[in-house]
Amino acid sequence: MKLATLKEGGRDGTLVVVSRDLARAVRVPDVAPTLQAALDDWAAAEPKLRAAAERLERGAADGAFAFDPRACAAPLPRAYQWCDGSAYVNHVELVRKARGAEMPPSFWTDPLMYQGGSDRFIGPCDPVEAISEAHGIDLEAEVAVITDDVPMAVTPEAAAGHIKLLMLVNDVSLRGLIPAELAKGFGFFHSKPASSFSPVAVTPDELGGAWRDGKVHRPLLSFINGEPFGRPDAGVDMTFDFPRLVAHAAATRHLGAGTIVGSGTVSNKLDGGPGKPIGEGGVGYSCLAEVRTVETILHGQPRTGFLRFGDRVRIEMPDESGASIFGAIDQEIVRYGGR
Amino acid sequence: MKLATLKEGGRDGTLVVVSRDLARAVRVPDVAPTLQAALDDWAAAEPKLRAAAERLERGAADGAFAFDPRACAAPLPRAYQWCDGSAYVNHVELVRKARGAEMPPSFWTDPLMYQGGSDRFIGPCDPVEAISEAHGIDLEAEVAVITDDVPMAVTPEAAAGHIKLLMLVNDVSLRGLIPAELAKGFGFFHSKPASSFSPVAVTPDELGGAWRDGKVHRPLLSFINGEPFGRPDAGVDMTFDFPRLVAHAAATRHLGAGTIVGSGTVSNKLDGGPGKPIGEGGVGYSCLAEVRTVETILHGQPRTGFLRFGDRVRIEMPDESGASIFGAIDQEIVRYGGR
Repeated sequence: MKLATLKEGGRDGTLVVVSRDLARAVRVPDVAPTLQAALDDWAAAEPKLRAAAERLERGAADGAFAFDPRACAAPLPRAYQWCDGSAYVNHVELVRKARGAEMPPSFWTDPLMYQGGSDRFIGPCDPVEAISEAHGIDLEAEVAVITDDVPMAVTPEAAAGHIKLLMLVNDVSLRGLIPAELAKGFGFFHSKPASSFSPVAVTPDELGGAWRDGKVHRPLLSFINGEPFGRPDAGVDMTFDFPRLVAHAAATRHLGAGTIVGSGTVSNKLDGGPGKPIGEGGVGYSCLAEVRTVETILHGQPRTGFLRFGDRVRIEMPDESGASIFGAIDQEIVRYGGR
Repeated sequence: MKLATLKEGGRDGTLVVVSRDLARAVRVPDVAPTLQAALDDWAAAEPKLRAAAERLERGAADGAFAFDPRACAAPLPRAYQWCDGSAYVNHVELVRKARGAEMPPSFWTDPLMYQGGSDRFIGPCDPVEAISEAHGIDLEAEVAVITDDVPMAVTPEAAAGHIKLLMLVNDVSLRGLIPAELAKGFGFFHSKPASSFSPVAVTPDELGGAWRDGKVHRPLLSFINGEPFGRPDAGVDMTFDFPRLVAHAAATRHLGAGTIVGSGTVSNKLDGGPGKPIGEGGVGYSCLAEVRTVETILHGQPRTGFLRFGDRVRIEMPDESGASIFGAIDQEIVRYGGR
């Protein structure tokens, strides 16, 4: 089942069920007005949503219409919790190396996770507003899950059953602000502005065999200004799987329904070295910080700049037939001029 | 105007207007079902809520009933954003001193702030569940504001007008988990479980002259097992006022309506030294970490333990006549036994 949220009906938008091929959608006002409302009572909502999805697939859904990702907000336009892990420890190691920071061995056994802002997510085709290019605007292509209510101290085994939906994320980062901010000791704040999400959130069964071991075994494609930038497999080199990340988030607290837990920047070590660009036959990268790190290691300094105003970022994941699973995050970086 | 949220009608509860003396309340279904809904369209909701408050004060509100804080959830039972500052830099300096951490001079000019979890707040009279006393369970008595929509890069001057409500907070902290967590570099996560809020949120005008310079000039009273523990003035030694904290939160992103911004642990330097207990004529403390720090400075090691299961914490703020402004946070620390 695939779900999306139209930008209509208020701040939380309007929940729609989307066809598998992303061509058609249908509103479901009799089931739940919003995705959060559905998640608040998922056990009751899910079978009804699946019934609507089944009607949509066989062309029997009244009021179905052509699905347009540009009409979409993030599946949860605002959420009560967004926790982002760093499950691809390869990425963490590379980025720390670039800024001369040691990596404690515990990073391979104890997940890193930060609490992100969740009050105003960016729609999949909406612009990323930033104040200055000097902030070092970067994409971070990730996969994320949405949970129902998760009890405190849940085991990873039990956490797996609380994963109800998956999405793609662009966890926009302001790299220039990170070193000073982390030096203050309280974690990210200014350096992690609003994140963007894919048009569609899907139930795990939509991924078929690609959803196994608590990971999504499909390539995550990133493009900058239409040029292929990354295609690492999200199922490879993921040190901590999603159930483990959810359990980590719930270690000392209950998680409310609609909690989003991210994978962190997807990164592979397939190349056997620090990572090659796609142009050189590698799998590329899911953020500019990583290619800059690799360049620093190889050439003594980065050669690739961060994002500029007017640049476009596209993030998408194809199924085995090449069809887009979640629809594309496709957005422009724009200067924020005040309001 | 004073507002509260009853634990009825769903996860977001039911908004009520509360009388100034906290004796009576009335539901306002014709205005807004929940506090978040009111904040989502505050310009429209505020005058209607004020009219209901005025009717309640003069005994003309149909359906008014006796107000019971034990029937309350947090004013926002769940929120889209909870950002907690550390505006009482005295507290930060003391706590860092205790763990042997340097304090950069920039801490006096650039606010510290962390992103907190906001998906499941604790009601004012509900228990604080924790897994182990060994985690070092601590209270942190604070003041917080709730904003409407705040544009990115707002000035402190303009931010002042976005402060719509004030509350008290118990920002429960697990001190034993903080050093290892901060050493990982991503900020607090396990060490900052769910926070508790006062029964009532009030508009700034309810504070009269005590709300000036963007600060609340009233003592914040904390009690542990009924014994007075702290009475520092929230208007004293607050290095960064609330408009400054809100502007800091909005530096690189828009803040959604219903964003909660906290002051951090209230701490005074009135004693001229590291801070005296109330029993010795001082203003005491708003968290155990601070008294333990002072004990370490004076005696070489802490003498006061952290909270134990069965302990009770009470946090309250009196007006000039001694009446409670926000009602009391009054809660027991309990062992979480799984679910």
